[in-house]
Amino acid sequence: MREITIALDGMGGDSGPEVVIAGAEAAHIRHPNIRFLIFGDEAKIKPLLDANPRVAGASEFVHTEVAVGMDDKPSQALRRGRKTSSMWMAIDAVKTGRAQVAVSAGNTGALMAMAKVILRTMPNIERPAIAGLWPTIKGESIVLDLGATIGPDAKQLVQFAVMGEAYARVIFGVERPTVGLLNIGEEEVKGTESVKAAAQILRNLELPIDFHGFVEGDDIGKGTVDVVVTDGFTGNIALKTAEGTARQVAHYLREGIERSFFAKIGYLFAHSVFRTLRDKMDPRNVNGGVFLGLNGLVVKSHGGTDGLGFASAIDVALDVAAADLVRKIATDMDVLVQLAGDLSEAAEREEAAVS
Amino acid sequence: MREITIALDGMGGDSGPEVVIAGAEAAHIRHPNIRFLIFGDEAKIKPLLDANPRVAGASEFVHTEVAVGMDDKPSQALRRGRKTSSMWMAIDAVKTGRAQVAVSAGNTGALMAMAKVILRTMPNIERPAIAGLWPTIKGESIVLDLGATIGPDAKQLVQFAVMGEAYARVIFGVERPTVGLLNIGEEEVKGTESVKAAAQILRNLELPIDFHGFVEGDDIGKGTVDVVVTDGFTGNIALKTAEGTARQVAHYLREGIERSFFAKIGYLFAHSVFRTLRDKMDPRNVNGGVFLGLNGLVVKSHGGTDGLGFASAIDVALDVAAADLVRKIATDMDVLVQLAGDLSEAAEREEAAVS
Repeated sequence: MREITIALDGMGGDSGPEVVIAGAEAAHIRHPNIRFLIFGDEAKIKPLLDANPRVAGASEFVHTEVAVGMDDKPSQALRRGRKTSSMWMAIDAVKTGRAQVAVSAGNTGALMAMAKVILRTMPNIERPAIAGLWPTIKGESIVLDLGATIGPDAKQLVQFAVMGEAYARVIFGVERPTVGLLNIGEEEVKGTESVKAAAQILRNLELPIDFHGFVEGDDIGKGTVDVVVTDGFTGNIALKTAEGTARQVAHYLREGIERSFFAKIGYLFAHSVFRTLRDKMDPRNVNGGVFLGLNGLVVKSHGGTDGLGFASAIDVALDVAAADLVRKIATDMDVLVQLAGDLSEAAEREEAAVS
Repeated sequence: MREITIALDGMGGDSGPEVVIAGAEAAHIRHPNIRFLIFGDEAKIKPLLDANPRVAGASEFVHTEVAVGMDDKPSQALRRGRKTSSMWMAIDAVKTGRAQVAVSAGNTGALMAMAKVILRTMPNIERPAIAGLWPTIKGESIVLDLGATIGPDAKQLVQFAVMGEAYARVIFGVERPTVGLLNIGEEEVKGTESVKAAAQILRNLELPIDFHGFVEGDDIGKGTVDVVVTDGFTGNIALKTAEGTARQVAHYLREGIERSFFAKIGYLFAHSVFRTLRDKMDPRNVNGGVFLGLNGLVVKSHGGTDGLGFASAIDVALDVAAADLVRKIATDMDVLVQLAGDLSEAAEREEAAVS
């Protein structure tokens, strides 16, 4: 494997540099060959590097005092943080080839806005998507888009399917990933027009995808397909709803255990179960949303995660960079364009047919 | 309380009449004054009534052999089941005033299609919504729309907010329910144009609503607001995703307990916790989606529920019928129209402003 350099936005996230350096350390223990290019405020990051010879030895550090705030609007961040912020510089390192991927726990809107400005969308792809790993009872699935693109049309949903399929091949190592379109029923008459038209296009094409058709919300956790494709609005709400439901169940369990003496004893015996449950549902283990569709790789870590979670995001970054995911997507998009010609025509035809 | 007659589609649901009659019995034990008007196949329902003097004594029975299939498309159901099906007849009983509300466990698409044809939308309301109760860590919230209306515009979302608020006042007994619009962030810059414009309209109006602004997916289970308003596509997917996540957690727990001897012992001690959890997450306890915005009340029960679940749907039906929810919504819509004039103008203005 060629050497991978990962650009780190040292200032992103609710806890800033501590989490970034702790995450870099945990990731480096697992992958001693990776190198880091860290951007941030010297006053805050230097002491952490001095105390952490492992990370320091694997890193190049670049000072900047400008940091994008977690509540900055994308337009604010672009105005104030252009060229000078740690977030901008980390993404720019991917553009210039100094790093193969950037990781930031900074705010998603700003990160996506900057990534779009710096890296631009790939040929044949109109809008980017954020792809996340979702724990399922079978393992993990990819869900995209988790919030980058609101209201994509049929053509853009088909592009998401191709990007998700390329990502699945890289990260799950399967030849023909199964892909489903998230809808409110499995029948063809249901759903938005863009979803129905996208399904028709995917059915008609001979893509190297095992297109499963429509899936519903409860299919995500079942692991019915490897890749679940949806628009950024629905995908983001589904993700947050699932996280909320998992926390709600945990709340009921905790409440029940605290209320009863016998339950406390039971908890001691069944402790391993609760630990397994916590691990399975632990958002830190599936941290790392990959920005797809840009001419370069950016991975978003949860803002509120800890070192362990940030290390998971670095793991994801390493996987997609080592597999050269951007090139893989470009290849698959070429196939799509060869098969479908100008996708706009197919989309218009199908959208007219379903409406 | 005036006497309430509930029209029952005796043939709806995966298990048909058995569940309907068992549900009617359980509901009648709790509310001995309700009466039923049951439509269905005599050969199947009569024996059940003969064996159940409580339900038989509270019921009038009307025979029809036609039943809408669980997989019938709405158009099929309307063609084959018009006037003659148990589903149609139950809804029609609401229109003619023989019953104050209809309950069916039949297929949602067919039920909504028939309800729209028979009852029509109310004045000032363009599109109906399905409102469901959602268990939260504080109790319950109302979420609408769960799948009736795909792609509502800002004006229709505002109408949903008013309908949901009227329902919340009736079922939770609060004067000024809190209402939130489901979105992918709390900032005003995020979301679809219809969601942003609807928020602007709700902020500007002096409705008898405590408008909370935007809520995210994880706010639903937290119980952040009494009423969560969203489009039918997103609402349906959020609901199914939450159900799937709850089942996923249950799966992990079961798997963990089965795998370990100590965990099995723990399970015995902590049994009450698991029972409480099961009760809290039991979809049977929150069964019953109310169709809002029509000139008459229809309640949809889960198709796969049992007698206990069907009884919950009857409870919901009784609550909304006893409170004369249709009249309450009409009154609130009058207030809305007085305050906002023609909502179309406000919507156009706001939609232009946010786009």
